[in-house]
Amino acid sequence: MTKSQNQMWGGRFAAGPDAIMEAINASIGFDQRMAAQDIQGSRAHAAMLGAAGIISNSDSEAIREGLHTVLSEIKSGNFPFRVDLEDIHMNVEQRLKEVIGAPAGRLHTGRSRNDQVATDFRLWVRDQTDAAIEGIEALMKAFLQQAKAGADWVMPGFTHLQTAQPVTWGHHMMAYVEMLARDKSRFEDARRRMNESPLGAAALAGTSFPIDRDMTAAALGFDRPAANSLDAVSDRDFALEYLSCASICAMHLSRFAEELVIWSSAQFRFVTLSDRFSTGSSIMPQKKNPDAAELIRAKIGRIFGANVALMMVMKGLPLTYSKDMQEDKEQVFDAADNLMLALAAMSGMVGDMTANQESLKTAAASGFSTATDLADWLVRALGMPFRDAHHVTGSLVAMAEEQGCDLPDLTLAQMQSVHPQITSNVFEVLGVENSVASRLSYGGTAPAQVRSQIARWEAILS
Amino acid sequence: MTKSQNQMWGGRFAAGPDAIMEAINASIGFDQRMAAQDIQGSRAHAAMLGAAGIISNSDSEAIREGLHTVLSEIKSGNFPFRVDLEDIHMNVEQRLKEVIGAPAGRLHTGRSRNDQVATDFRLWVRDQTDAAIEGIEALMKAFLQQAKAGADWVMPGFTHLQTAQPVTWGHHMMAYVEMLARDKSRFEDARRRMNESPLGAAALAGTSFPIDRDMTAAALGFDRPAANSLDAVSDRDFALEYLSCASICAMHLSRFAEELVIWSSAQFRFVTLSDRFSTGSSIMPQKKNPDAAELIRAKIGRIFGANVALMMVMKGLPLTYSKDMQEDKEQVFDAADNLMLALAAMSGMVGDMTANQESLKTAAASGFSTATDLADWLVRALGMPFRDAHHVTGSLVAMAEEQGCDLPDLTLAQMQSVHPQITSNVFEVLGVENSVASRLSYGGTAPAQVRSQIARWEAILS
Amino acid sequence: MTKSQNQMWGGRFAAGPDAIMEAINASIGFDQRMAAQDIQGSRAHAAMLGAAGIISNSDSEAIREGLHTVLSEIKSGNFPFRVDLEDIHMNVEQRLKEVIGAPAGRLHTGRSRNDQVATDFRLWVRDQTDAAIEGIEALMKAFLQQAKAGADWVMPGFTHLQTAQPVTWGHHMMAYVEMLARDKSRFEDARRRMNESPLGAAALAGTSFPIDRDMTAAALGFDRPAANSLDAVSDRDFALEYLSCASICAMHLSRFAEELVIWSSAQFRFVTLSDRFSTGSSIMPQKKNPDAAELIRAKIGRIFGANVALMMVMKGLPLTYSKDMQEDKEQVFDAADNLMLALAAMSGMVGDMTANQESLKTAAASGFSTATDLADWLVRALGMPFRDAHHVTGSLVAMAEEQGCDLPDLTLAQMQSVHPQITSNVFEVLGVENSVASRLSYGGTAPAQVRSQIARWEAILS
Amino acid sequence: MTKSQNQMWGGRFAAGPDAIMEAINASIGFDQRMAAQDIQGSRAHAAMLGAAGIISNSDSEAIREGLHTVLSEIKSGNFPFRVDLEDIHMNVEQRLKEVIGAPAGRLHTGRSRNDQVATDFRLWVRDQTDAAIEGIEALMKAFLQQAKAGADWVMPGFTHLQTAQPVTWGHHMMAYVEMLARDKSRFEDARRRMNESPLGAAALAGTSFPIDRDMTAAALGFDRPAANSLDAVSDRDFALEYLSCASICAMHLSRFAEELVIWSSAQFRFVTLSDRFSTGSSIMPQKKNPDAAELIRAKIGRIFGANVALMMVMKGLPLTYSKDMQEDKEQVFDAADNLMLALAAMSGMVGDMTANQESLKTAAASGFSTATDLADWLVRALGMPFRDAHHVTGSLVAMAEEQGCDLPDLTLAQMQSVHPQITSNVFEVLGVENSVASRLSYGGTAPAQVRSQIARWEAILS
Repeated sequence: MTKSQNQMWGGRFAAGPDAIMEAINASIGFDQRMAAQDIQGSRAHAAMLGAAGIISNSDSEAIREGLHTVLSEIKSGNFPFRVDLEDIHMNVEQRLKEVIGAPAGRLHTGRSRNDQVATDFRLWVRDQTDAAIEGIEALMKAFLQQAKAGADWVMPGFTHLQTAQPVTWGHHMMAYVEMLARDKSRFEDARRRMNESPLGAAALAGTSFPIDRDMTAAALGFDRPAANSLDAVSDRDFALEYLSCASICAMHLSRFAEELVIWSSAQFRFVTLSDRFSTGSSIMPQKKNPDAAELIRAKIGRIFGANVALMMVMKGLPLTYSKDMQEDKEQVFDAADNLMLALAAMSGMVGDMTANQESLKTAAASGFSTATDLADWLVRALGMPFRDAHHVTGSLVAMAEEQGCDLPDLTLAQMQSVHPQITSNVFEVLGVENSVASRLSYGGTAPAQVRSQIARWEAILS
Repeated sequence: MTKSQNQMWGGRFAAGPDAIMEAINASIGFDQRMAAQDIQGSRAHAAMLGAAGIISNSDSEAIREGLHTVLSEIKSGNFPFRVDLEDIHMNVEQRLKEVIGAPAGRLHTGRSRNDQVATDFRLWVRDQTDAAIEGIEALMKAFLQQAKAGADWVMPGFTHLQTAQPVTWGHHMMAYVEMLARDKSRFEDARRRMNESPLGAAALAGTSFPIDRDMTAAALGFDRPAANSLDAVSDRDFALEYLSCASICAMHLSRFAEELVIWSSAQFRFVTLSDRFSTGSSIMPQKKNPDAAELIRAKIGRIFGANVALMMVMKGLPLTYSKDMQEDKEQVFDAADNLMLALAAMSGMVGDMTANQESLKTAAASGFSTATDLADWLVRALGMPFRDAHHVTGSLVAMAEEQGCDLPDLTLAQMQSVHPQITSNVFEVLGVENSVASRLSYGGTAPAQVRSQIARWEAILS
Repeated sequence: MTKSQNQMWGGRFAAGPDAIMEAINASIGFDQRMAAQDIQGSRAHAAMLGAAGIISNSDSEAIREGLHTVLSEIKSGNFPFRVDLEDIHMNVEQRLKEVIGAPAGRLHTGRSRNDQVATDFRLWVRDQTDAAIEGIEALMKAFLQQAKAGADWVMPGFTHLQTAQPVTWGHHMMAYVEMLARDKSRFEDARRRMNESPLGAAALAGTSFPIDRDMTAAALGFDRPAANSLDAVSDRDFALEYLSCASICAMHLSRFAEELVIWSSAQFRFVTLSDRFSTGSSIMPQKKNPDAAELIRAKIGRIFGANVALMMVMKGLPLTYSKDMQEDKEQVFDAADNLMLALAAMSGMVGDMTANQESLKTAAASGFSTATDLADWLVRALGMPFRDAHHVTGSLVAMAEEQGCDLPDLTLAQMQSVHPQITSNVFEVLGVENSVASRLSYGGTAPAQVRSQIARWEAILS
Repeated sequence: MTKSQNQMWGGRFAAGPDAIMEAINASIGFDQRMAAQDIQGSRAHAAMLGAAGIISNSDSEAIREGLHTVLSEIKSGNFPFRVDLEDIHMNVEQRLKEVIGAPAGRLHTGRSRNDQVATDFRLWVRDQTDAAIEGIEALMKAFLQQAKAGADWVMPGFTHLQTAQPVTWGHHMMAYVEMLARDKSRFEDARRRMNESPLGAAALAGTSFPIDRDMTAAALGFDRPAANSLDAVSDRDFALEYLSCASICAMHLSRFAEELVIWSSAQFRFVTLSDRFSTGSSIMPQKKNPDAAELIRAKIGRIFGANVALMMVMKGLPLTYSKDMQEDKEQVFDAADNLMLALAAMSGMVGDMTANQESLKTAAASGFSTATDLADWLVRALGMPFRDAHHVTGSLVAMAEEQGCDLPDLTLAQMQSVHPQITSNVFEVLGVENSVASRLSYGGTAPAQVRSQIARWEAILS
C-alpha cells in the first residue's frame, strides 16, 4: 500500500494532532440522534428552575420557547451541527444562545453535562424499549395468525433435526409466541428498572441549588429520581440491560430464521416465502433465496457484539464518569436499529409465508413417528410397564418396516400376533392426526390445547 | 512435541472412536451436580402419577422412597457414578431399579429425558438465583456498614480519575448499594420469569397420559406449568438471563475491585485492605498486593465469557431439543461458582477494609476542588449568570494558586478585589466540609442526604 | 431456598474469610496440569545455574535429580497436592526440599514466580499448539480420503441452502481441507511467535545474577529469550493467539457439523453417519440423532467464550503482573481440551460417514441447476452478450418446466425454436455430469481439478 | 411512547414490506466504501478476459476505460448511488453501461457477484492490514523516542499496582515496542495468509470459460489464486483474522491507556499529557482529563465486539455463500476505523507526553523497593542460601523502617549488627540507580540493556 491509498493515516490525519483529537473526541456525529431527548430534558429542567424560583419565570419561559425553536430547526433537517462544539448538548445550547440571548446562560444552573447526557441517553433507550415491546407484540400477532390458521395442521416435531413425533403447525408457531412473550416481559422489567431520573445529580455530587428532582422526573415520565448522584452519572446498566434483552430476543429470531432457511430448501419445502422477502434467479425458477431470513439470522451477531463491546468498556471503570463511557451510544444505536429492523422483517415474513400443508403432513408421518403413541397406549390401556411396552412396539415397527407400510396400516391380527391383548382401540392413537389429538396434557400439541393457548394470547394482546 | 507428550491425541484417544464418543457425549462428569434436583423432580412426578391414578399408589410410594435412598447414597459421597450410563438421569434410574425393582420402570411414564433435564436444570438455576440474591444482600449490608461509619468522611469525587468535587465516603459506598440493588432486582425478575415447570412437556409434544402438571409445578415450587411443550424443552432463556444478570453484577464488582486496587497503591493510600484478602512480601513491609480485589476484577471475564458461550450455542438452533444444548450446564455451573465466590470475597474485603480518613480528606481538598461551589454561590447569592460566575471563579482560583493557598484561605478583601459584591457568606460554601454539606439535593453527597439513604436501605434490608 | 441448600454461601463459606480467600486465591486445583512443564523449566534453570557457576555443580545435579523424582511421584498419581501451598510451583519446591534438603533452597536464585509461571504456561500452550496442528492434519487426511473416494460424485452446490449449481463431493470435501490448512498455518505462525523464553525475566526487572538466558531458552526448545523482562511477565498474547486460532478452527468445524446435521435429516439423506457417532431410538429405526455433530457444532461457543473471557481479563491491566492474570489458565485448558475433542470426534465421523450418492445426484439435478451452463455456452459458443444469453436460457427453462422435463431432455428442435443458432454441441454442457466436468478453471469443481488438488495435498501431508 | 415517537416502526416502516426489505437487504449504504476495490477488481478481470480471448480486446479496453471514468465520478463525490441497485457492484455496472453501452454486458463473463464481493472485500481488508502495520510502526517509533530520552530515568516497576522493584522509563516504554512488534508480526502473517485471489471462483463452482486466474491474481497483487472455488466464496477467515489481530493490538493500547489515566492522576503525577490530548476545566487549573487515553482504552470494546459479531454470524453456516455474510463489512469497517484512530491518537499522545522524572524517581525509591537487591547481594556475595538471605533482609528493612530511613541510609555498622559478614560493597546495589544498573541480564532493566534494545529496534524500523 502506498501512503496515498491509506486515507485514514496518510490523508485525514496528516492534518495533525488536532484533527486526530477531534476525530476521537467529538460525539456530535452520532449523539445528534438524541436531539429530541436533549431538548425534552432541558425544557423540563428549565420549567423546574422557574417553578423553584432559581431562575425567573420569564427566563424559564424564554428558554423553553427557544428550545422549541431549536428543536423545530433540527427536525427540519437544516440545523448546522458543528463538530467544534463537540456534542449535541453544546450544539443546542449554543444555538439557544443565538436565539434567545442572555437567558440561555441560566439553563445550565444546577446541572452538568454528566447528568444531562445520562438523562438524554436514558430517555432514548427508554423510547427504544417501548419500540421493541411494540415490535415484539406485532410479531407475536403475526405468529398468532399463523397458529390460528393452522392449529390442526400436522407437521413433524423435531429433535436433532430428526422427526421425533408429529406436532401441529399452530403449536410450533405458539412456541415462538411464548419466547417473544418472555422477551416482552424482559423489556418491561428493564423499562421499569431504568425509569429513574439522573437529572439533578449534576457533575456527580448533587447541587446546592434548591432543585426539585421529583418535578423534573415526573415531567420526563420517570417514576422517581435516582437516589445516589454518583451512581446516577456512572451507571450504564440501563443500556446493558437493553442490550441483554435485545440479544436474547435476537437469538429467538435467529432460531426461527434458521428454520425458515431449512424449511425453504428444496429438500424440505415446508414453507414458501413471499417474493417480497426472498430473491430469485432469472433462469432458475425454483430457486428462492431466503435473504431476509438469513439477514435476520445474522443480526444476533451485531446485537450481541454490541453487548460485548459495552460490557468490555464498563469493565473495571472506577467511579464516576470516565470518557470511556462515550462509547456507549453507537453500540446501542446500532443494536436498536437492527433489532427493530429484524422484528419488522420477521413480522412481514411470518405474515406473508405459506405453509405447505401436504409436505408437512407427509413428513410428519414418515419414520414411524407415532411409535411412542403406540408404546404409550400399551402402557395406558394394557397396564404394561414402560420398558415392556417399548419392546412390543419395537417388534411391531419391525413388522411394519418389513412390509413397507406404516403402523396404522397393520391389521389387528398382525398386531395381536405380536401381543394378543392389543384391541382395535389401538387404532385411535395411530396415525398422525390421532397422535396429535391425543396429546391433551396442558401445553401439549393437541389442536384443542393449541386453540386454548391461542385464545389466551389473543385476549392478552388485544 | 512427540506424540507421547500429547495425552489427548496420542493417549486417551488412541482407544479409538468409542472412547472419543464417550468423551464428547457423556455428561455425568458434570451433570451429577444436579442430582438433588433430578431426584426432587422425579419424586414430584411419581407423587403426581400416583394421585392421578396413572400408576398405583404403592408403586408411587415405592419410587419415592427408593429415590430418597438414592439421594442419601449420593449425598454420602459413595455413589458409583457410571460413565456408560451417560448422565445423571440414567444413573439415578438405574440405581432406583436396583433398589426397588420393577416399579422403577413406571417412573418414566408421561415424561421424557427432554423435560426431565429442563426441569432439573431450571431448579438448579433457580437455586443459584436465590443464592445470588442472598450473596448480593450480604454485600449490600457490608457497604451499608462502611457508609454508616463514614457518612461524613470527605473524599475526592472523581471523573476521569481526576478530582472533580469533594464527596463523602458514605455516598461513594452507597453508590454500590444502588448498583447491587439493581442486580438483586434483576435476579428477582429473572427468578419470577423462569419459575415455570417444563415437567410434563414430555419429549416435546406433551403426552396422552392424564397427567396433572399443576400438581408437579406446585410441588416443585413453580408458579405454573410452561404453556407450550415445544418451547418448554427448547428454552434456555432462564440460563441466559441468569448469565446476563450475573455478568452485570460481576461488572459492578469489577469497578469496585479496580477502585480498591488503585486506592491500595502507595500513591493513593485511600484504603488499607486486611491481611486476609491481600498478600505481602516478607522483605517489603509496605507492599500489600490486593490479590482478592484483582481476582474479583477478573471474574467478569469468565462469567461474561460463559454468557457469550451459551448465546453462541443457542444461535440459530432449530426447535426443539438439539444435543448442542448439553453445553449449557458447565458454563452456568462455572459462572455461578465464580459469582458466589466473588460476592463472598468482596463482602469479606469490604467488611474488613479500613478507610484512611486523612489521606481521603487531603486528597479531596487539593486541586481547588470547591471551585464549583464558589461559582454556584455567585450564581445563587449574587444572581450572576452562570458563565460570568465561572469567569470570576477562574480569577479567584488564579489568585489563590499564585499565593500558594486554597480558596478558603483567601481573605474577603482579596475576593472583593476581584468582585466587590462578594460577602463573607461565601466562606460558608468553601472548604470541603462546607462543600459536601451544601449538596443537599435529593441523592446528593451531603451527610444528611447520605444518612437518609442509609436509613432507607437499612429498613429495606432488615 | 433455605440457607442449607446453598452450599456455597451457607456451607463452604461459613468457615469464614480464610476459606473464601483460599478458594479464590489458590490455583493448585488447576495449575497442577502444568506440573511437567514446571519441572521441565526448573531443570533447565538448575542446569544453567550450575553451568554459569551461580550454584555448585553438585547442587545443580541434586536439584535436577530431585525434580526428576518429584515428577515421577506426580506421574504416578499419588502426589499429595496441598492447597495451603497454593500453586504448583510451591508444591513442587516444597516436595523437592523434602527430597533433597538444603540445595532446594538455591533453585529459585535469579528467577521469580512471575517468570516461572510465564514459562510453564507458555510451554503448556506450545504443547497444545503442536497437538492442535497434529489433530488438524488428521482431520485433513480424513477429508482427503472422502474427497478421493468421491472426486466425481455429483452433489448440489448450495448458496442460501438453495441448489445453485452441481458440484462434486470431492470438491466440497476439499473446501474443508483448505480451511483446515489455514488453521494449521495460523497455529504454526502462533507457535513461532510464542516461542520465546520468559525465563530469566525474574520478578519483572531481570536480575543481577550472571544468568545465561540463551542456555535455558535452548534447553526448553525456545528460539530465543524474550527481549524485555517487563513484557515477558506481563504478556499473555500467546494464550490469546492460541484461543483466536482455536476459535476460527472451531468455527470451521461448526460449519461442517451444521452440514452433517442437515444432511442427516430425513429430508436430505445426503449422508449416513456411523452408529458410533450418532444415537438412535429403540422404537424408531430410522431416527439417527447426529449427537457428535451437534456437540461439535456447539464447541465454538465455549472455545470462543474462553477467548472473550481472557480478552476481557487483560483489558486495561497496567504492567506488569497482576493477579487477574491467574484467570488465564482454566480458560485455555478448557478450550484446548474441547478443541482436541472436537477435532478427534470430527475426524472419526468424517472417516466413518457414508455419502448417499444417489440422493446427492438426484438433488443436484433438480431445479434446472445447469441453467447457468446453458447460458455460458450461449455466450461462449455463439458469442452472445451475457444478458441476452440469460434471456434465451430463461425461455428454455420455462419450456422445460412446462413440459415437466429437465433441460437436457429438450430436443434440439425445441431449443432451436427459441434460438435457431443453437447446435447439438449444447448437449455437451447439459446434465450434471457434463456441467461439473466443464468447470475446469483453476480451483473449479471439475473432477480433474479436484484430483489435482487432492494430489497436491497428499504430497504436502505425507 | 406514542407511535409517532417511534420513527422506526411507526414511520419509516409504515411504508410497508418493500421498505423493510430494502432496509434490511440493500448494502450500498456501506459497501460503497469498497468502490475503488470493486473497480480495481473489474479492471483486472476485463484485462484478463481480453488477453484470454474471451472478449475482444476493444471491448476489454472500453470496459477498462469506462471503469476509470466511473471511479473518477465516485472520487469526485458526486456519484448518485442508487439504493434500488442494492450494492456497489450493480451501481458500478449500471453506470458503466450508461458510459460505454453494450460492451459493459460482457464484463460479468466468467465471474459472479459471489467471487466479486469476496475479491473486493479481501482487497479492502488487505489495504487496512497494510494501514495497521504502518500505524503500528509509527507508534513503535513514538515509544522508541520516549525510551531513548529516558533510558536511565528511574521509575517504579509495578506488580499488582504496588511498587515491586525500580525499573527504567526506557525499559517500560520498550515493553510496548515488544507488544506492538508482535501485533505487527501478526498482521503480516495475516496478510500473507489472506493474499489469495477469489476471483474466478465464479458463483461457487468455477467456470467453463478459459479464464486465467493467475493473471488476475497477479494484477491485483495476490500471491496466488485460491485453490478451491467453494471455499473462495465461503471464506471470511481473512476478516476474522484481521479482527483478531486488531483486538489483541487494541488490548495492548488499552493497557497503556490505563497506565496513562492512572499516571495522570493527582496522586501519581507520573506524566503530563499535552493539552491537545486532554481537556481541562476553566476553573480548576490542575484538572486535566485524559480524554484521549480513556477513549483509546474503550476502543477494545468495539473492536473485539466486532470480532464477536462476525464470529457469531459465521457460526454454523453451511457452505457456500449465505446472505448472513453480508453482515461482515460494517463490523470490519468500524473496527478498522477505530483501530486506526486509536493508533493515531496514541502515537500523538506518546509523542507529546512529558514524564515527570522527579515524581517517578521518588516513587521508585519508596517502600524499600531495593530490598530484593539486598537479598540477591547476600546470596551472590556471601553465598547465603536464598531463604536465609531473605531473613536477613527482612531484619534490615525492619531496622530501616524503625529509623524512618531507607536501606541505603543505614550505616555499615548497623548492617553488620544484623549480619557481621556484610561488607561496604553492599552499597553498590542499594539505591534505585544502583539497583537498575545491576539488572544486566538480557532483557533486564539496566540502562545498558535498554539502550541495546533501542538500538536493535531502531535498526529494524529505520
